Amino acid sequence: MLPKTELKKIAQLGLKKFRDQTGLFIVEGQKSVVDFLDQGWHCEGLYSTQKFDGLQTNMITEKEMQRITQFKAASPILGIFQKRLSSAIPTQESALLLDGISDPGNLGTIIRQASWFGVSHVICSTQSVDAYNPKVVQASMGGLARVTVHYTNLESFLFRATLPIYGLALTGLPIQKVSWDRPAYLAFGSESHGISEAVLGKLTQCVTIPAVGHSAVESLNVASAAAIVLASFTNP
Amino acid sequence: MLPKTELKKIAQLGLKKFRDQTGLFIVEGQKSVVDFLDQGWHCEGLYSTQKFDGLQTNMITEKEMQRITQFKAASPILGIFQKRLSSAIPTQESALLLDGISDPGNLGTIIRQASWFGVSHVICSTQSVDAYNPKVVQASMGGLARVTVHYTNLESFLFRATLPIYGLALTGLPIQKVSWDRPAYLAFGSESHGISEAVLGKLTQCVTIPAVGHSAVESLNVASAAAIVLASFTNP
Repeated sequence: MLPKTELKKIAQLGLKKFRDQTGLFIVEGQKSVVDFLDQGWHCEGLYSTQKFDGLQTNMITEKEMQRITQFKAASPILGIFQKRLSSAIPTQESALLLDGISDPGNLGTIIRQASWFGVSHVICSTQSVDAYNPKVVQASMGGLARVTVHYTNLESFLFRATLPIYGLALTGLPIQKVSWDRPAYLAFGSESHGISEAVLGKLTQCVTIPAVGHSAVESLNVASAAAIVLASFTNP
Repeated sequence: MLPKTELKKIAQLGLKKFRDQTGLFIVEGQKSVVDFLDQGWHCEGLYSTQKFDGLQTNMITEKEMQRITQFKAASPILGIFQKRLSSAIPTQESALLLDGISDPGNLGTIIRQASWFGVSHVICSTQSVDAYNPKVVQASMGGLARVTVHYTNLESFLFRATLPIYGLALTGLPIQKVSWDRPAYLAFGSESHGISEAVLGKLTQCVTIPAVGHSAVESLNVASAAAIVLASFTNP
């Protein structure tokens, strides 16, 4: 049995305010928890409703898990981990630049893609959704344990950037015709407004993914577009 | 003011059981509603909390909208549309085959991609999530208004198929090396189990998207993978 105050403190980590105050965040599900442990993240506590081989957990009831889970359907295991202090943003290594991504599912999916395609850094504008949001953690499927996410003022950052910057837009060079310079930055804009004017002005090259036919939807989802750009960019 | 019974009937369309009984489904948000109207879908009723130029709606209160919306944050407009009777599945045209996709966000995202890349048909196994689920409609961003979604027993369907069938798997021919025969079927499996054994046996070619480096996540999200396959397949 856990004291109610402890349950409350854990549940509050669903909110950015409390994650910022404590430097902690929640990871749910066996696969993700093991990923963060394997990647050496500091764990403050593991809570589970059943035993897991090789994991020392605090056993709690289903009801207690319901109180702390951030999802409709709780996993049998939940971990509290310490956020990592932000390291210096690398200036000579390929990275994604995310300019105002607001949907946690999109950010998590893009972090998962970055991990798959060997891009170790994701640089977000300060307006972007928090990478330690439980839905980002979940959608990243262990990607957040492997990829470093930075938050910065993109405009100032790009002012000093020396790598080429490719940015996805609705008009630009068709992606099939791009000869990628590597390393480089790959920039993606927000779901509703695309890349901001300030960042657009810094791009080395606008890239577009052409639609096929005349009756297409207005745009691709930003995570779908990021998958296509990453596959093309990292294609050996 | 709408009678409570009518509000209830609309709200129930969030459930597949009631969509199947009535043949109706819900579309929320101005962009999506206009897409379905533009594409000639039969509209049974429009409800809104504000006026929209060019649209005849039943004005309702915010409170009433809260009763019928399927989302946490209601849009100011909601439409009830008639599902389309399933047409014959085309046998000489490229299509996506979805074998057990269960996440509505993934299905909607893939339908949006199909529309973007000019693939007009999506063929789902009977276990897949319902395409008229409000979250699918939302994630498809008008794609469902343009793409025809069929449900069938994939194994029997593929028994008679004459087009080549490419299937995404964790092992297979690296996508960069595939010379696509077109038209063709592009098959994707469920989020947790991939393509089923029965369908795997029918594939002309297993295709894989290689990870880069050694510390990658276990897999890509199925919608991310579909984006990459569609971009490669339709690349002129």
